[in-house]
Amino acid sequence: MAAAGVFRIALGVEYKGARYRGFQRQRDGVPTVQESLERALSKVAGGAPVTLSCAGRTDALVHACGQVVHFDTRIDRPMLAWVMGANRNLAADISVTWAQAMPLHFDARFSAMARRYRYVIYNDQIRPAHMAEEVTWNHRPLDISLMRQAAACMIGTHDFSAFRARQCQAKSPIKTVHHLRLIEHGRFIVLDIRANAFLHHMVRNIAGVLMTIGAGERPVEWAKEVLDAGVRRTGGVTAHPFGLYLVKVDYPAEFTLPERYIGPHFLSALADHPG
Amino acid sequence: MAAAGVFRIALGVEYKGARYRGFQRQRDGVPTVQESLERALSKVAGGAPVTLSCAGRTDALVHACGQVVHFDTRIDRPMLAWVMGANRNLAADISVTWAQAMPLHFDARFSAMARRYRYVIYNDQIRPAHMAEEVTWNHRPLDISLMRQAAACMIGTHDFSAFRARQCQAKSPIKTVHHLRLIEHGRFIVLDIRANAFLHHMVRNIAGVLMTIGAGERPVEWAKEVLDAGVRRTGGVTAHPFGLYLVKVDYPAEFTLPERYIGPHFLSALADHPG
Repeated sequence: MAAAGVFRIALGVEYKGARYRGFQRQRDGVPTVQESLERALSKVAGGAPVTLSCAGRTDALVHACGQVVHFDTRIDRPMLAWVMGANRNLAADISVTWAQAMPLHFDARFSAMARRYRYVIYNDQIRPAHMAEEVTWNHRPLDISLMRQAAACMIGTHDFSAFRARQCQAKSPIKTVHHLRLIEHGRFIVLDIRANAFLHHMVRNIAGVLMTIGAGERPVEWAKEVLDAGVRRTGGVTAHPFGLYLVKVDYPAEFTLPERYIGPHFLSALADHPG
Repeated sequence: MAAAGVFRIALGVEYKGARYRGFQRQRDGVPTVQESLERALSKVAGGAPVTLSCAGRTDALVHACGQVVHFDTRIDRPMLAWVMGANRNLAADISVTWAQAMPLHFDARFSAMARRYRYVIYNDQIRPAHMAEEVTWNHRPLDISLMRQAAACMIGTHDFSAFRARQCQAKSPIKTVHHLRLIEHGRFIVLDIRANAFLHHMVRNIAGVLMTIGAGERPVEWAKEVLDAGVRRTGGVTAHPFGLYLVKVDYPAEFTLPERYIGPHFLSALADHPG
């Protein structure tokens, strides 16, 4: 844990992405979650610089409640001091939820076996005045059973090129979707998806196709046609980022991390399927 | 309905109060919900000025999902045009949810028989990064059964002077609380209170006392001691405005208004007690 006096520390992080140009640090002056976190953690480390690696590089405006990051430090602090100290130095829209010392071969990004996202749709004729930045508003009545039927074809290992943004840098478009569920919760519809990894905009592009089908603008079979076509332009619009949350990252059993509810917290009454 | 060509129109309104200095219009340049609504409605009325009356003059930063307002106009528009037209001209944090033509003796404020508020507490050790402006964070573990026991003494007709802000302009401190419920919903605790009318800061002062008792800092009996003492200084701190929502206004049966779920919408899975 402390070879040559170096500690590797993993953190759980949640953030409201609305004010940020995504997780990843960019040039000076561009607000990013990474830059905010590194600055706050450096203060806890008595001014020593801190460089983070993250499990999922979320896009501009996208939220997280289960982001995992790691960093190395020679500063020996109790884990609670990293949590509380960071939170004292962070804006109200970023929180560190836990900290844990890890072996040096743990890597927040490369050790991850799966990522899980939730896409939260508020389905009502009237624009919601609350949580305008936390949910995606869809005013067309959505038929969740059509969305479920359409989602079935995405489960398993496929070439997801049709759901891939042009600027995507992934080596392969072939990903394995472990589950893709649609959950109704009052006027909210939550798309819950777990895969080994995701292409750039993949969840939002899937959400766009499923909402189009749910609204009755395309038949259920269109989802499979888009998937099989393998080109982005068949799949219609990319859904808005505000409804998207990185909720969980899974690691091999040797890296036991603190358990927390699967958010966002305003859905905490939903059954948290362990899958 | 149209005596001398005047229409009286009632609207349902929801808003996120975080950017506003309360509902009521103030001097020019101070952002208020009333000023925003009147400006948007005036555009729908082809430029004719619109002056609103409201059921509950919510404070700075306080939210609403069941506010009711009325105004008089000589402009004859379909009800849906008032709703959709206003929403097109409003910022994302205010929505008109319905519009209905009313008899001229209906008054949003003076016809109201009861108001209902919800105060939403997020109870967790870690500061929530999401909905920082929509909930009140309390990091101390709260015992809801103690809060329920303490709340019992408030139900009924009492002199609520101990829960009244100094600047309150109500004629009488005697109000009738019809119900005061505490509902658990994951990590949220929701205080749901209905009364014929409320004193200034009354809900937030009651919430402050109940949270203090729930945290074990004062015994259950303290709530009744504060109530009986009849002076504000015995009751401790006024709870933060961010968790507070005006959720419903009740009128006599002759004024049937559109039914909507009792919000805020992220609690839409909660049973909506009709009381």
